[in-house]
Amino acid sequence: YQRRQFPVALCIFQVIFILAFSLCAHFNAHALPDNKSKVYVNTDYPLFQDIHVMSLVGFGFLMAFLKRYGFAAVSMNLLLCSFVSQWAMLLRGFLSTEFRDSYSFTISIEEIMIADLSCTPILISMGALIGRFTPMQFVVMAFIETAVCIGVEYLVITVMHVNDGGRSLVIHAFGAYFGLAVARTARKVRMISKRGTIRVVGEDAFDDNSEDGVDHSELFSMIGTLFLWIFFPSFNAAVQEPEDARIRAVINTYLSMTSCTVITFMLTSLTDRHGRFNMIHIQSSTLAGGVAIGSVANAILQPWHSLLIGGVAAIISVFGHTHLQPWMRKSFLSVTDTCGVHNLHGLPGILSGVCSIIIVLVYDPSYYGDSLYQIYPYFAGGEKMGNRDKYEQALYQALAILIVFGAATVAGLITGLFLRGGCINQMSDPTGAHAENSERAGFYYGLPQEVLWRSMELQREMQMRYRDHESNEIF
Amino acid sequence: YQRRQFPVALCIFQVIFILAFSLCAHFNAHALPDNKSKVYVNTDYPLFQDIHVMSLVGFGFLMAFLKRYGFAAVSMNLLLCSFVSQWAMLLRGFLSTEFRDSYSFTISIEEIMIADLSCTPILISMGALIGRFTPMQFVVMAFIETAVCIGVEYLVITVMHVNDGGRSLVIHAFGAYFGLAVARTARKVRMISKRGTIRVVGEDAFDDNSEDGVDHSELFSMIGTLFLWIFFPSFNAAVQEPEDARIRAVINTYLSMTSCTVITFMLTSLTDRHGRFNMIHIQSSTLAGGVAIGSVANAILQPWHSLLIGGVAAIISVFGHTHLQPWMRKSFLSVTDTCGVHNLHGLPGILSGVCSIIIVLVYDPSYYGDSLYQIYPYFAGGEKMGNRDKYEQALYQALAILIVFGAATVAGLITGLFLRGGCINQMSDPTGAHAENSERAGFYYGLPQEVLWRSMELQREMQMRYRDHESNEIF
Amino acid sequence: YQRRQFPVALCIFQVIFILAFSLCAHFNAHALPDNKSKVYVNTDYPLFQDIHVMSLVGFGFLMAFLKRYGFAAVSMNLLLCSFVSQWAMLLRGFLSTEFRDSYSFTISIEEIMIADLSCTPILISMGALIGRFTPMQFVVMAFIETAVCIGVEYLVITVMHVNDGGRSLVIHAFGAYFGLAVARTARKVRMISKRGTIRVVGEDAFDDNSEDGVDHSELFSMIGTLFLWIFFPSFNAAVQEPEDARIRAVINTYLSMTSCTVITFMLTSLTDRHGRFNMIHIQSSTLAGGVAIGSVANAILQPWHSLLIGGVAAIISVFGHTHLQPWMRKSFLSVTDTCGVHNLHGLPGILSGVCSIIIVLVYDPSYYGDSLYQIYPYFAGGEKMGNRDKYEQALYQALAILIVFGAATVAGLITGLFLRGGCINQMSDPTGAHAENSERAGFYYGLPQEVLWRSMELQREMQMRYRDHESNEIF
Repeated sequence: YQRRQFPVALCIFQVIFILAFSLCAHFNAHALPDNKSKVYVNTDYPLFQDIHVMSLVGFGFLMAFLKRYGFAAVSMNLLLCSFVSQWAMLLRGFLSTEFRDSYSFTISIEEIMIADLSCTPILISMGALIGRFTPMQFVVMAFIETAVCIGVEYLVITVMHVNDGGRSLVIHAFGAYFGLAVARTARKVRMISKRGTIRVVGEDAFDDNSEDGVDHSELFSMIGTLFLWIFFPSFNAAVQEPEDARIRAVINTYLSMTSCTVITFMLTSLTDRHGRFNMIHIQSSTLAGGVAIGSVANAILQPWHSLLIGGVAAIISVFGHTHLQPWMRKSFLSVTDTCGVHNLHGLPGILSGVCSIIIVLVYDPSYYGDSLYQIYPYFAGGEKMGNRDKYEQALYQALAILIVFGAATVAGLITGLFLRGGCINQMSDPTGAHAENSERAGFYYGLPQEVLWRSMELQREMQMRYRDHESNEIF
Repeated sequence: YQRRQFPVALCIFQVIFILAFSLCAHFNAHALPDNKSKVYVNTDYPLFQDIHVMSLVGFGFLMAFLKRYGFAAVSMNLLLCSFVSQWAMLLRGFLSTEFRDSYSFTISIEEIMIADLSCTPILISMGALIGRFTPMQFVVMAFIETAVCIGVEYLVITVMHVNDGGRSLVIHAFGAYFGLAVARTARKVRMISKRGTIRVVGEDAFDDNSEDGVDHSELFSMIGTLFLWIFFPSFNAAVQEPEDARIRAVINTYLSMTSCTVITFMLTSLTDRHGRFNMIHIQSSTLAGGVAIGSVANAILQPWHSLLIGGVAAIISVFGHTHLQPWMRKSFLSVTDTCGVHNLHGLPGILSGVCSIIIVLVYDPSYYGDSLYQIYPYFAGGEKMGNRDKYEQALYQALAILIVFGAATVAGLITGLFLRGGCINQMSDPTGAHAENSERAGFYYGLPQEVLWRSMELQREMQMRYRDHESNEIF
Repeated sequence: YQRRQFPVALCIFQVIFILAFSLCAHFNAHALPDNKSKVYVNTDYPLFQDIHVMSLVGFGFLMAFLKRYGFAAVSMNLLLCSFVSQWAMLLRGFLSTEFRDSYSFTISIEEIMIADLSCTPILISMGALIGRFTPMQFVVMAFIETAVCIGVEYLVITVMHVNDGGRSLVIHAFGAYFGLAVARTARKVRMISKRGTIRVVGEDAFDDNSEDGVDHSELFSMIGTLFLWIFFPSFNAAVQEPEDARIRAVINTYLSMTSCTVITFMLTSLTDRHGRFNMIHIQSSTLAGGVAIGSVANAILQPWHSLLIGGVAAIISVFGHTHLQPWMRKSFLSVTDTCGVHNLHGLPGILSGVCSIIIVLVYDPSYYGDSLYQIYPYFAGGEKMGNRDKYEQALYQALAILIVFGAATVAGLITGLFLRGGCINQMSDPTGAHAENSERAGFYYGLPQEVLWRSMELQREMQMRYRDHESNEIF
């Protein structure tokens, strides 16, 4: 049962997805009246591709810095993207007005793109947990988190009419705090140590292999960082409207990230006694500018405001790495954050929420012209017949931060307790006799009764036998 | 002669290409009447770029899992792409109606994109042979295969009016069976073993380095997998018309791949006694959904049909890895398939052909409206004055499978026999005295009388001397 | 002072940038009259993204072949891109006519794209110096070089109306010769040898690790090569006008690179006594075709001319690697070129200038129709009221080569002398007692009094102590 739990669960999920699609999903038969235009015109396909690169290559390789879990991180990332994007398409379909009218919803490129955005919070939560969860636990968590996340997004954006254009609150902050809450409650597993080493970003466990050759894990991680860096403007611009807000989102995100990168290099050198650079800051904090600008990327009208926000994001992200994360682990919170997602997504996400309060107060709404009602749909005078002024909107923006933080934490704690239950595969303590074998073979999460990563069965068994023999000789 | 064969051949080919281009190729002087539009509007440039990323990064790194042949795989991939895309542009030009009229043809972005598609079958065949062929053999094979492949494509698509939109039959299946047929007949070379190890996917030869540090070959291979995964919708959509068929191709391909990925993870765990994951399945079978949907991506009108095809593709691909490939190698067929291309391109390509028969029978042609005659140009009522109904079209679709399979196998066997001829560089048995040196230096195919990969000449020679010296001491 | 110089300087620069942006930069409030179009239509966003991938992933990983400096190369690349793109936006803004009128300039996607192009010469110069400069030196050099480069570009293109469409002269040749001139005068540092090895492309220092496992540095470098290869057409097409010139630039660049790649493989085999391939040629010379076609990519009207230029570029680039670079290092010039940028950017850049002279003489101006005045704006009959014929234009094209070469060399020599000054961080001789420790820890440039790369402070210090202990035992 333990061994076959994961494939059986995946199979059931996939069959349900296919059934649900067969009952409720259809194409828009005549999507494009003007059949002469090309696929890159008037569709979201290129932005979808950019976000796709971010989800699969960016997040996948960002987590590949774990020496022996690089392959596991990249593959689990691919599985969760495939799984969540189907589930998110269904959930969003069920929430659509079209479904309420006709019990059926349309799948177009835009729906796929938005479903792709919904993979991000799950990948972020995975970043907080990688190396300590079995694939089964990740799949169940993804199933629950996607539902909660889309619910919160619906509440915050559709019901409360909050401006969270680049989704920094409902995606980045939500994903980070959900993951941390799960990490808090889920069954504690002694971190695999010594050879099967899991390195927790910015913390103690650390496998120094510098003796035996050059280690390239860090370079793989930089592949992730760079692709996230490059396509972050597309992420923040993906669902912006109208087009001038979308272009502002692109430019503001880019400016924020350049400034964030420069300040990160400054701080990483400044926080070191010898003025050296910390690789983790470079891999992670350089991206904080993109997260911090998210909620307001469409609304900022002065280039230097973006530069400023990027700088502040670098400060809180590096501070998070150097001071907050060690404290969180050692204090009563006792939260271990494998990839340091709190410093890359949590804190900058909250900062983005705070910026969205300030920006709505600072700018005169008349600057936006007609675009105002697409950025803040419930302002007085718009189609939605809203009655807010900028002070009321600021209150709603503030409320959104609390809702996202609260919902993520509570849902994460409950999910963590559920995943701790005995019925779901757990990582066993990898210090027993088997661990000796398992760690060497490279890529897995747990032990025989669980789901293991393997190279190849036959070869594996020969190795085991060989090693048992060998170990008798040596020890 | 043996040593200089490769550069001389390349030089002759390139000179002929330049001469042919100078005689027959020209630009369309006034390609864009509306000079105000940008290059991304109304051209195929972005789709061309996506396919370009797939050919060079995707296929290149997919084959980089070979520990000591990673660099060789990636570079040979680059050479063959450059070589084949020129040759394919010429061949397609010669087949165009414009050439028949004026002995000259136009080169535009669309022609380059289609030439880029023609590199794919050669890269697939290379995947079946890598590690056992010299660069000279690859170049000659590419020259022959490109010509045969474009001929078969012309016959199947232009003459027989078969719907093979994403080119799963004429590119994927053709490339795979051609490569396997070449592998069958080409001179057998004892696989380089022990240190210079070539690992054949899913089979015995396997170099376990887990002892001496973390191995990252698998992560490089994942770079290939992920870029292929991300841009597969562009591949299947590239030459689709009209625009609603192109958008359906994008969405269907994406859906098929998500389902295929989930089912692959399910099966890889299920086929292992301990429920572990097999890296090879994850690297290769997750892509089978994109191949299997190819021929029908433009025609499928129900999202769940794509999900279903993706699931079936995963099943046959994993089954191919676990059962068919070992059988093929050990049975009377005696075919060794280095990268397992049969399971990623061969079987799913045939599946795609079978799906194209089913789909033409299942859907009512009237659903497509005017697009019908662009998907099935020879249906009764279209411009081509065709007279087919859906049953006749299904027969042609079935015939196409047989033609592609037959042509690929026969042409592959003949090419293999030709490449076996003594006049072309062969891999020598790398077990002699030289092998000891050659394997250490890292990156080559054979020995002095052949084309070798080298780091740097002087340093190399010093090494050799040093090693000869050393070996006296040790052995 | 030495230790804190780098963060303090970065901080001052970033504060000045933010102030300058706050005073002078603004968005175009109503950039898009037609708000229904998408961000990919009628903006330069996709080309900007392509160039972005080239700057960050392409150049970053191209330099990652240095075994122990891979991470340093990739991160320094990211910092310099962020730093330079802000500085270039400001400089170009100050030179704009809008600024002269209103003391304020507009930031749009096009401005960011052009600023991104301006990062390239700095990254090229960095390629000539990597491994021998501290981060502080790179930042100061980038600050000076950007200003000079934009000045030269303004002179050559805006004042002299020279056609340098793909910027091969003002970006590639300028960056290469500036870097080489800096390398000539900057304080000589004994190359870190033995373990902390820096390998100079094509030269002596070479760390052979083939014994202890497979080395993947070369594969990382190929990631860079491939992304540069793929997106080079976008680079050369980015600022071309009108649209038919832009499409010609794409096609010509692609054709030139295919031919260059084939000839490079031919030559790398031909120049080796045993016919083997040299990895460095494959990583670098295959790209020379893109550089060599740059200045004329918009003007060439015959496909085979591009193929020819690509072939010539391969010849001079491989010749540069095999003969010129060793000579330059040993002769009176005594210039060491870490990444061989002279063979990839310097020589092909000059070749591109020479081609631009030939092309203007060979083609009849009437072929271009109305586009003529956008390619050669000062030809008689255009809006600029110019009076040149093709012979005069050819003279200006020749003059541009001299100006670029002269300005780059003189400015590079002066900058090098300045960077040699004691007030800026220098690399210390890494042969002392500390070097023993420093080299092992992986990633830094110098020693305690300078800016160091570190993994993590505490762990580092423990290592140091451990190692001191250990070394007592061993030696």
